Amino acid sequence: MTTRSRPAGKLLYAQSGGVTAVINATAAAVITTARAQGVKVYAARNGILGALREDLIDTGKESTAAIAALAHTPGGAFGSCRFKLKGVEQDRAHYERLIAVLRAHDIRYFLYNGGNDSADTALKIAEVSHALGYPLGCIGVPKTVDNDLAVTDTCPGFGSVAKYTAVAVREASLDVASMAESSTKVFVLEVMGRHAGWIAAAAGLAGHDPDDAPHLILFPEIAFDEAAFLARVKATVARVGWCTVVASEGLKNAAGQFLAEAGNRDAFGHSQLGGVAPVLAGLVKQKLGLKVHWALPDYLQRSARHLASATDAAQAAAVGRAAVEYALAGRGGVMPVIVRTADAPYRWKIAPAPLTRVANHEKKLPRGFIRKDGYGITAAARRYLAPLIRGEAPLPYGRDGLPVYVRLRNVAVARKLPAYAQGDR
Amino acid sequence: MTTRSRPAGKLLYAQSGGVTAVINATAAAVITTARAQGVKVYAARNGILGALREDLIDTGKESTAAIAALAHTPGGAFGSCRFKLKGVEQDRAHYERLIAVLRAHDIRYFLYNGGNDSADTALKIAEVSHALGYPLGCIGVPKTVDNDLAVTDTCPGFGSVAKYTAVAVREASLDVASMAESSTKVFVLEVMGRHAGWIAAAAGLAGHDPDDAPHLILFPEIAFDEAAFLARVKATVARVGWCTVVASEGLKNAAGQFLAEAGNRDAFGHSQLGGVAPVLAGLVKQKLGLKVHWALPDYLQRSARHLASATDAAQAAAVGRAAVEYALAGRGGVMPVIVRTADAPYRWKIAPAPLTRVANHEKKLPRGFIRKDGYGITAAARRYLAPLIRGEAPLPYGRDGLPVYVRLRNVAVARKLPAYAQGDR
Repeated sequence: MTTRSRPAGKLLYAQSGGVTAVINATAAAVITTARAQGVKVYAARNGILGALREDLIDTGKESTAAIAALAHTPGGAFGSCRFKLKGVEQDRAHYERLIAVLRAHDIRYFLYNGGNDSADTALKIAEVSHALGYPLGCIGVPKTVDNDLAVTDTCPGFGSVAKYTAVAVREASLDVASMAESSTKVFVLEVMGRHAGWIAAAAGLAGHDPDDAPHLILFPEIAFDEAAFLARVKATVARVGWCTVVASEGLKNAAGQFLAEAGNRDAFGHSQLGGVAPVLAGLVKQKLGLKVHWALPDYLQRSARHLASATDAAQAAAVGRAAVEYALAGRGGVMPVIVRTADAPYRWKIAPAPLTRVANHEKKLPRGFIRKDGYGITAAARRYLAPLIRGEAPLPYGRDGLPVYVRLRNVAVARKLPAYAQGDR
Repeated sequence: MTTRSRPAGKLLYAQSGGVTAVINATAAAVITTARAQGVKVYAARNGILGALREDLIDTGKESTAAIAALAHTPGGAFGSCRFKLKGVEQDRAHYERLIAVLRAHDIRYFLYNGGNDSADTALKIAEVSHALGYPLGCIGVPKTVDNDLAVTDTCPGFGSVAKYTAVAVREASLDVASMAESSTKVFVLEVMGRHAGWIAAAAGLAGHDPDDAPHLILFPEIAFDEAAFLARVKATVARVGWCTVVASEGLKNAAGQFLAEAGNRDAFGHSQLGGVAPVLAGLVKQKLGLKVHWALPDYLQRSARHLASATDAAQAAAVGRAAVEYALAGRGGVMPVIVRTADAPYRWKIAPAPLTRVANHEKKLPRGFIRKDGYGITAAARRYLAPLIRGEAPLPYGRDGLPVYVRLRNVAVARKLPAYAQGDR
């Protein structure tokens, strides 16, 4: 790939949507690669909102050491946001404001690090900039623990949450197995994945033999059947002595209702804040009379950089590097995606995919990854998932026993435009 | 300390109560130390229940490599139990059966690895064996994530759950901080500790500056004041932009009721399986209208050997070694406890404490460890807690990306006595 030795203009990097344990590894790779090419990198504070508000951060004010530490710091160091730009017709003012901000700061490259929505936004920004005669290289950079981006073999962020989940199942199950004879016999772990069971599937990597944990995985793709579930739990406890259940937060009943919302009320009749795990645990206790515990790690699962997958961290950095290379080579409207070239030994490379192929598509968990009985994963799923959690990505711990994470200075760039009222919500 | 070169009889080791990330480090040290002295070690399957049922495991059938791996495997490798022997008067048959089992297998040393109850049981077994003219060295070995054992400076198991909790707060808070501007503003983490706020206090180690997470710690020692809590959350969000709350599962209202049981009902009016975090999250959402997330790691926190404290793992091994040394030196009725000799630099040693001083006492979280306003920890707490989470205790990972934990063979010893009906429940 050719890169210009003195590229014109600056690069703007923005994070979008739910953050991950390794999104900052992408950010660090973007900054390092651009710096090496003599290109200045600005970051938008709180994602696209910062770009609209002209609230930009000069990453040039961060030391090399800080950027190196950024590579192993979880969360989104510049702030992310949940804010979806609508179509160009509805949100034309936003798009024009964005181009005005980019133009004011001589930003010629825009890297948007997010999921399906962000790919769509990057695509639309490219269209508008073209229509307005402002040359801009727009690149989508993949990220999501949900693993639901189209085209790419996997999404940076997913491998680490997959590893966290498999380790959690293995460790907690050793605990349950110890106590089952006279105490807790059933353990329910709720994992993220409202629309697809990718993370739930990854839990299956914790076990190899039929009676290893997890004994039951409940996927959002398979309608929950209470009687069948309880019969399985009962049979597992009878056979193994205990039972570990992994349930996706998106589990639904046959009527398509989320179980987490199916009847959890406080004393005042308010709907309680969900959790499918307590609902399942309540069923096990009430219908089977078995002692049960449940866990809901929530953000712990997607921020656990201390347990990141080395494969995932490497891929997060690789997409960041490639994004800068594509941008500087004049390739707009693409996303660097992960291409799997072999399962065993696992091999992958980065290649550009047109944003039109990524935007607004969703990668579903294939039915062939779910066992016929609906409660476990298949050999095909294992083949796909296994490499993604391989390798550890150690990080420095301080003398206080805690991981050393960086807090960037995040120095604001002086504004050049009037404030934008519509950007302040 | 003198040890006999050819001690008479065998040693029985049993695990009791909730297991920890490092209780097997104690077990491994017991086995290794006894082996080196030529003493055979049996383990009771599922704790004292196995001893009553004459369900004993011959640890001599485990390889040196298996015992080495045991040292970094979480859970209780021989099984633990929740079963408290009552007084000698009420449960005389149990005590006499125990002595009969020990006598039948020529067991002259009994090491009971547990909390307050186990110390009490060990004490009573010593009394009964003495009364029956059966010479037996009874040693209590400390263990509990609750850190509530008397005399010992800390309890093996606690330092690792403390480290897990502090790391979880730091990592999840980076996630929340990234998203707060347009999404989740409040995060509630529920931690173990039904009767004392030791684990909740440890969460305080995650922050150093006043506005670092955790912003609020809710201790079981301080009655929950809804209005004051909500005002604090609101003020923190206004000042910092977001707020991390750590709540002990044992949080109670002014009337002494557990919050986790204070009104969580399903559609059928059944009491749901607790969780103080969802109750607090519901309050924040309903009363403040802020987007909130909550996590409840449950067993994940006490089984997370992958994040164990090196200090904790070293102390768990040290009490195991000392227990064997005391037993072989003929010192019965004691517990090896951790004695802190200096805070900075942290220094500790192991010393014997009479079981009479440990049994049925409880170490409360000192009021001087809780900040005057009730929502954080003091410098004294920090001085006590900080050394306990220091150091990492790395473990081997397999090519599959998961920690390598051992499953012992747990070969049963041939029975010599008739079955004991009262031991089968």
